[in-house]
Amino acid sequence: MISVEEATRLVRATAAPLPAERVLLTEAPGRVLREAVHADRPFPPFDRVTMDGIALRFAAVATGQRQFIIEQTQFAGQPPTPLRDATAAIEIMTGAVLPPGTDAVVRYEDLLIEQQPDGRRVATLQVPPPAAGHNVHRRGSDHPAEALLLPAGTVLGPAEIAVAATVGATTLSVARRPRVAVVSTGDELVDISEVPAAHQIRRSNAYMLLAAVQQAGAAGSLFHFDDDPAALAAGLPPLMREYDVVLLSGGVSMGKADYLPQALRGAGAEQLFHQVQQRPGKPFWFGRHPAGAVVFALPGNPVSTFINYYRYAAPWLRAVQLPAPQFAAPEPAVLAADVTFKPNLTHFLLVSLRRSPDGRLLARPERAHGSGDLASLLPSDGFVELPAERQAFQAGEVLPVWRFRGQ
Amino acid sequence: MISVEEATRLVRATAAPLPAERVLLTEAPGRVLREAVHADRPFPPFDRVTMDGIALRFAAVATGQRQFIIEQTQFAGQPPTPLRDATAAIEIMTGAVLPPGTDAVVRYEDLLIEQQPDGRRVATLQVPPPAAGHNVHRRGSDHPAEALLLPAGTVLGPAEIAVAATVGATTLSVARRPRVAVVSTGDELVDISEVPAAHQIRRSNAYMLLAAVQQAGAAGSLFHFDDDPAALAAGLPPLMREYDVVLLSGGVSMGKADYLPQALRGAGAEQLFHQVQQRPGKPFWFGRHPAGAVVFALPGNPVSTFINYYRYAAPWLRAVQLPAPQFAAPEPAVLAADVTFKPNLTHFLLVSLRRSPDGRLLARPERAHGSGDLASLLPSDGFVELPAERQAFQAGEVLPVWRFRGQ
Repeated sequence: MISVEEATRLVRATAAPLPAERVLLTEAPGRVLREAVHADRPFPPFDRVTMDGIALRFAAVATGQRQFIIEQTQFAGQPPTPLRDATAAIEIMTGAVLPPGTDAVVRYEDLLIEQQPDGRRVATLQVPPPAAGHNVHRRGSDHPAEALLLPAGTVLGPAEIAVAATVGATTLSVARRPRVAVVSTGDELVDISEVPAAHQIRRSNAYMLLAAVQQAGAAGSLFHFDDDPAALAAGLPPLMREYDVVLLSGGVSMGKADYLPQALRGAGAEQLFHQVQQRPGKPFWFGRHPAGAVVFALPGNPVSTFINYYRYAAPWLRAVQLPAPQFAAPEPAVLAADVTFKPNLTHFLLVSLRRSPDGRLLARPERAHGSGDLASLLPSDGFVELPAERQAFQAGEVLPVWRFRGQ
Repeated sequence: MISVEEATRLVRATAAPLPAERVLLTEAPGRVLREAVHADRPFPPFDRVTMDGIALRFAAVATGQRQFIIEQTQFAGQPPTPLRDATAAIEIMTGAVLPPGTDAVVRYEDLLIEQQPDGRRVATLQVPPPAAGHNVHRRGSDHPAEALLLPAGTVLGPAEIAVAATVGATTLSVARRPRVAVVSTGDELVDISEVPAAHQIRRSNAYMLLAAVQQAGAAGSLFHFDDDPAALAAGLPPLMREYDVVLLSGGVSMGKADYLPQALRGAGAEQLFHQVQQRPGKPFWFGRHPAGAVVFALPGNPVSTFINYYRYAAPWLRAVQLPAPQFAAPEPAVLAADVTFKPNLTHFLLVSLRRSPDGRLLARPERAHGSGDLASLLPSDGFVELPAERQAFQAGEVLPVWRFRGQ
């Protein structure tokens, strides 16, 4: 039996970057970028007008001139035409190129525009611009051409997609989704479409894990094996060859039908550890197959399965999508009640999270009826990690929290 | 021009629940439940053994008995067989039904099991159980049959999927995804696959909004119109009939090519407001079409588009998936630097978020080069809302923050 810290270290040591694949920009949201994206042009690509109004030469304003004849009107999307008379102006729209010969923009709100009897339109400045460059977003002022905008390893959210679109990235290189075989084991389990006998239950863990791996950006497929050494010996090897991860639940305790550790070793997996000094989830088995699959064999009690998945497997599935695996530290949260836990085990305590009025994240322990109570997960947002060395924890202490719900 | 508070009220007043649809459990993660899910049996459905070991009658332990002959072995998934001799025991596995005649379980770790010369196996208690019920998860102790487990309106995460699987919900009624027409406008825009001329840019807003509406659980489709009243008059009405939301960017400022407000009204949309006392995003236009579509016409500067989407449209897209629309309050965050903003406008200030060691959420202002600087979004996680009535904000103040990145 090893410590949580040692188990964490051994799990993380198996994380290696998945290969990349190229996808359409519209398929890329949520994926992890595996190439660098650079500016194809300066940002912005031209001196860009940021207000609707008139463009003029500031030098004229500086001499005291307040009335400007409007030579023409220029829209966004039109090639710019130069100012002909240095004391005149060009009516201009947001997003247009600043016309050559002008260097400042006065917005409509600061102008009065009148048509003269000869048909010419004249703008009178109500509020003169303070300097050249007013209401102009200078070419290259945000980023020069070739600037690195998105480094490899960026998670592609809407802002990153917009930047990629701007530089014309119609496709992007992203990490291939981790392929996960989600395997339930246990003779007491029947499928969700069946009516269980009095001594049976439906296989809920597999559906839970399938949803959870999707949340981590992975692609899951469902399998089930009975507690039968022959079925395991036949069924496990193909999964360990074809998937990046084999994620099992059940069959790893001390029971007489807990064939999995032996079956996994028999199928060629190297055992990296079995049993961790933690509650819930002590029987967790972890290993690796020479063909490449990493094997998380989680205990079958639903709450154990759930907590161990989020503590060990979910961060791993995120990390292998990065060009160099990294693991984010859990957030600090403030314990909202006193907690005592006597066994010399790391304790994962289910909590609901809320934000206090002063901006602190409060973790309130949720009552769990032992690790079988699936429904105790519903009011919980995550779990705090109480170190094994201590038994008493006070309200107000700051502890690491692992979330399974966003925000 | 109306206040942010009034704009928020008018936007929220248009939120009505979308119809429900039935999907497979495997398609349900991330969706919003629109029916109640009840326990089909008690939780747990039988007196469930929670440790591998032996089941015995506590009354025998109470008399001082420490050695128990093992009558048989019972596995999870087997119908239970009763204890024949009240002073004997049954070897039992986690997840099995507690055998009739027994009322407590002693785990292997607290036992010594030896085989006698006559072949019988005898367990000696090293640590006697403290009471009846030890290591037994009592039938119905978590939830009675018919208990409400998941109310309508629940967002279906992995824990909820597990509960639904347990009660045999092979399909679930969920909110139909909001259908969103994502429309870019502007003659200066070219598609992402094209090389823009010097005065053109690529249409990044549409791809950004498409990714963002997916994040909110909606289904988006892309459209583009030039700044052409005839094209808008022909193209807008079908979108307003066929989509729940028409989400536009650009064309709502004071410029001469800003035809959208007029075109939307001409196409039958009722204008609910145009222009909001806010920066960025003052020109925001909002309305509703009698055929049902709600129209968010956001300003075209990318940062304005982005912030207005997350401030007004994203919460709306979440709310209409609920059985009765509700809007979550933004989180409180601690401003990490002094900020001054003089105009009498609500200011949406881009910030990066991190957690201080004491569990507080810190919001650090990010430098933005005006609302055109798309790349300024990249280091930001959201924006704080600085009320219009004040000009100076001190580091340490707690203010509402709207996130566009998880956690």
